[in-house]
Amino acid sequence: MAASLHLNPDHACLIVHGSDQPGIVAAVSAMITRIGGNIVAFDQYSDNPEGGAYFQRVVFHRPGFAAARPHIEAEIAQTLAGFDLEWSLTDQSVPKRMAILSSKQDHCLLDLLWRHRRGDLPVTVPMVISNHTASAEDVRSFGVPFFHVPGVAGPDKSASEAKILELLRGNVDFVVLARYMQILSGDFLKELGVPVINIHHSFLPAFIGAEPYKKAKERGVKLIGATSHYVTDDLDEGPIIEQDTVRVTHADSAAELARRGADVERQVLSRAVLWHAEDRVIRHGNHTIVF
Amino acid sequence: MAASLHLNPDHACLIVHGSDQPGIVAAVSAMITRIGGNIVAFDQYSDNPEGGAYFQRVVFHRPGFAAARPHIEAEIAQTLAGFDLEWSLTDQSVPKRMAILSSKQDHCLLDLLWRHRRGDLPVTVPMVISNHTASAEDVRSFGVPFFHVPGVAGPDKSASEAKILELLRGNVDFVVLARYMQILSGDFLKELGVPVINIHHSFLPAFIGAEPYKKAKERGVKLIGATSHYVTDDLDEGPIIEQDTVRVTHADSAAELARRGADVERQVLSRAVLWHAEDRVIRHGNHTIVF
Amino acid sequence: MAASLHLNPDHACLIVHGSDQPGIVAAVSAMITRIGGNIVAFDQYSDNPEGGAYFQRVVFHRPGFAAARPHIEAEIAQTLAGFDLEWSLTDQSVPKRMAILSSKQDHCLLDLLWRHRRGDLPVTVPMVISNHTASAEDVRSFGVPFFHVPGVAGPDKSASEAKILELLRGNVDFVVLARYMQILSGDFLKELGVPVINIHHSFLPAFIGAEPYKKAKERGVKLIGATSHYVTDDLDEGPIIEQDTVRVTHADSAAELARRGADVERQVLSRAVLWHAEDRVIRHGNHTIVF
Amino acid sequence: MAASLHLNPDHACLIVHGSDQPGIVAAVSAMITRIGGNIVAFDQYSDNPEGGAYFQRVVFHRPGFAAARPHIEAEIAQTLAGFDLEWSLTDQSVPKRMAILSSKQDHCLLDLLWRHRRGDLPVTVPMVISNHTASAEDVRSFGVPFFHVPGVAGPDKSASEAKILELLRGNVDFVVLARYMQILSGDFLKELGVPVINIHHSFLPAFIGAEPYKKAKERGVKLIGATSHYVTDDLDEGPIIEQDTVRVTHADSAAELARRGADVERQVLSRAVLWHAEDRVIRHGNHTIVF
Repeated sequence: MAASLHLNPDHACLIVHGSDQPGIVAAVSAMITRIGGNIVAFDQYSDNPEGGAYFQRVVFHRPGFAAARPHIEAEIAQTLAGFDLEWSLTDQSVPKRMAILSSKQDHCLLDLLWRHRRGDLPVTVPMVISNHTASAEDVRSFGVPFFHVPGVAGPDKSASEAKILELLRGNVDFVVLARYMQILSGDFLKELGVPVINIHHSFLPAFIGAEPYKKAKERGVKLIGATSHYVTDDLDEGPIIEQDTVRVTHADSAAELARRGADVERQVLSRAVLWHAEDRVIRHGNHTIVF
Repeated sequence: MAASLHLNPDHACLIVHGSDQPGIVAAVSAMITRIGGNIVAFDQYSDNPEGGAYFQRVVFHRPGFAAARPHIEAEIAQTLAGFDLEWSLTDQSVPKRMAILSSKQDHCLLDLLWRHRRGDLPVTVPMVISNHTASAEDVRSFGVPFFHVPGVAGPDKSASEAKILELLRGNVDFVVLARYMQILSGDFLKELGVPVINIHHSFLPAFIGAEPYKKAKERGVKLIGATSHYVTDDLDEGPIIEQDTVRVTHADSAAELARRGADVERQVLSRAVLWHAEDRVIRHGNHTIVF
Repeated sequence: MAASLHLNPDHACLIVHGSDQPGIVAAVSAMITRIGGNIVAFDQYSDNPEGGAYFQRVVFHRPGFAAARPHIEAEIAQTLAGFDLEWSLTDQSVPKRMAILSSKQDHCLLDLLWRHRRGDLPVTVPMVISNHTASAEDVRSFGVPFFHVPGVAGPDKSASEAKILELLRGNVDFVVLARYMQILSGDFLKELGVPVINIHHSFLPAFIGAEPYKKAKERGVKLIGATSHYVTDDLDEGPIIEQDTVRVTHADSAAELARRGADVERQVLSRAVLWHAEDRVIRHGNHTIVF
Repeated sequence: MAASLHLNPDHACLIVHGSDQPGIVAAVSAMITRIGGNIVAFDQYSDNPEGGAYFQRVVFHRPGFAAARPHIEAEIAQTLAGFDLEWSLTDQSVPKRMAILSSKQDHCLLDLLWRHRRGDLPVTVPMVISNHTASAEDVRSFGVPFFHVPGVAGPDKSASEAKILELLRGNVDFVVLARYMQILSGDFLKELGVPVINIHHSFLPAFIGAEPYKKAKERGVKLIGATSHYVTDDLDEGPIIEQDTVRVTHADSAAELARRGADVERQVLSRAVLWHAEDRVIRHGNHTIVF
């Protein structure tokens, strides 16, 4: 991958998440000083200082991070042993591996590939999988492998999903559904085991399900929107990462809503992907904390 | 009422609405020339040039309009006789009479009264009716009569509504529900016989019903909104006039959402009221055309 | 060019522009009825009904428009003879020919080419000219000719411009500067003789001239913006077609401002190009009327 | 003052500002634990981890804060002695005292008074001073003292300013210019010695100086804006706290721009005032960091 503003050598990101208790900031920041790190960014949030949930994101610079990582992880584990907290540590010099699933509509797909090429997304793109072949040439012109897995409804659905799983398993850190028009089964999501980010073409929870622009036209709304969320078993009900809206009028047809909405979709999806790739998004129940 | 930018002597607004046919623009504009008028603003929209619905708003200047009105109405009727169209004519030098119904929350109420006093709304405000007494003094400081009609649930609801009807009947051209927390019955709306504009504190159709900010917090949305719509028998389902949204984060509590939403509510409601007062909004089925 | 929503067979657009006088709407609409046309869209604006400037845009459907065009033009000329008005008529089934000039930054260039390929812009793209070679392959992958004309400062500037003129002359209806970083001379613009649309990476008139994001960072603004305008002899002073802004914070570096601004730039430019291509923009002095 | 969401008993805010060095977060958070505090909100920013400027805002809960304050201040001083940092500590249960200066236009003034009454601003309002008398009754209806100090141009200006100073000195923590149309002298600002927040009716740095809406109309911009900033000796050049914009069209007159802009002004000013009152704004050179 090309050099990016977002990949920083010897930088790491520590996410901490659990029950709020006094002293977490002090314990974590002292530990980072102790291991020779310098805090570059620090965000925290508690949904209730009295027994609520606590969330923390710390980015620190530590020369020789990769070599020292086992030692650092041991320090973190020891530091947090007294608290009721989960944690994860990521190396900010290593891009996440992002696969993209798409269908016929290519605006979100191409937007992600172009941002990646510009160095605006700290990821690699090991593959694009589509149930259509229309985008094959475009995708490959970005130097990205393209695989065609036809979508099949009904009993054979599991065959398609099995094929997709075979391609993805072990090769990706997260998956983006860039207007992928197939519904993924709960079994697939469980087997896959990495986060899946979707872009829905409405301002959720308005217009859940199929054909949201048609429904928006029918209801006569004055704004349309788009929502990026983590995919769960419940269709269109997963934790929301980012949303935005744009003004429309009575004079816009459903086709015009789709055209205008496409701009919002690619903006919203690209922000959600960037924030996920930078470890800024923490899932908590059906919500997200975005630092 | 104080002089306003929006009240123009010898100006009239003609709304035309019905089946699209060739020649409507030519017929209407020739008629306006014939009666000695000069077109100041002209908007039209057809949802389908082949047999769709047609909407037109023409503002024209005609010296001596009030005296000539019967003659002008006869000309309009004759001109449109050959088309399948309804029409209405309003004198733009005469402010509409707007009653406001409110409850405890006063942000929308006071915002409308301020704007009115500044000359930013081409209306008179003959009265404010509330099911609480808290705003009485504020309302009267604007020189506006205040009436307290306690809201009653259950069988006595009709008594309250009868009292409100008695106050409003014949005295108002439209009614604004400025965060009025009582549900008006279908009978009341029918008896009243003038348009009723509501402000709902969500981006409809998301979060229909009570406590939308609480629901928004639970769903974890990243934008909240407000919707102004005409009131119909179906709660929160009437034709939408205007909507807007504002960005929020995970860190905003439901109370904070309410505080931030209050700003959107008063902006959205004031725009809807202004457009209605200027005869810019045409209802068509469950939609609005806003010129 | 692929079929587009925006290209309509047998549709024409008549722009009328000049001194306001009573009777223009009636005269134009009667004429359109007379020539067998049906009005599809009608917009008008007067900056002062008493002796101000008048602007009108009428889209009408007229079966057999192309064959009847000379007859229709004669009718228009005769109809408007008694008014102090200029007019122009365009065939809405014929796409405008749009050349793009670009430099190293490719976000605006690629965005326009994508939208064009999707059928979202009613134009053809006969060529892209750049003072860099980096985008050659991308441009050609869209089936669009690419020409490299190195930019030269100082006395030899005229040589570059002459070469560009040679490529453009007679082949284009308008030119888009998609982050083209060379300043075009007044002589070039005069020789070219077609409208030139630029995208400036600031909210004009703030941050005129070079390096607007750096200046925005230095001034500590909380929003950055982009402006699309027609190019005139006065750098960054031409009539503004469209603008937009996006929120930034103290934590965004100048590089981050540029990254975030790139999204605003391509949105703003694409809207300006679409509106120009649809004959929605009328220039008047240093302003635009956008219908 | 009425109880407010924003005033929290036993909560304090520590602002730290100076040269970035490793270990600041650890030192501050350990100190807060040591004094028996629990961190409720923590924000930090460094404009350059290598020798840049560092900014930190910590809100902590400490039972019995007021009584323990001298001890806590001594701990802070000792903790930060080894760093090159300035600090300030505020008691978040004590509202700041905000005076408002206004002229004829009352939209910003009334908006602030109403928000204050609703409990949405953690301040008291000891007085309003105006160079006009029009708002006297309105201001007093909020229970706020009103003083009339006529504005005088030329040599007598210092007399007015002296009178204002006499009223303000010792009685206020900050001053808000709510569309106050007199220019305050550098001497006045120096004598006053507390922050002064202004609302300018343009998107600075566009349209510096008088009559920005007229200038915006002349330039033909498609968005207008408002800017709230700290007042310095250089007119319209002080550090920007908050800005926003709203869309306008060619059809909006300068008067209409002013009407639409008034909504943006009061939103922008109210956000700036809230953030200042909550100690969220740190000045640094001609910039602000807003946490």
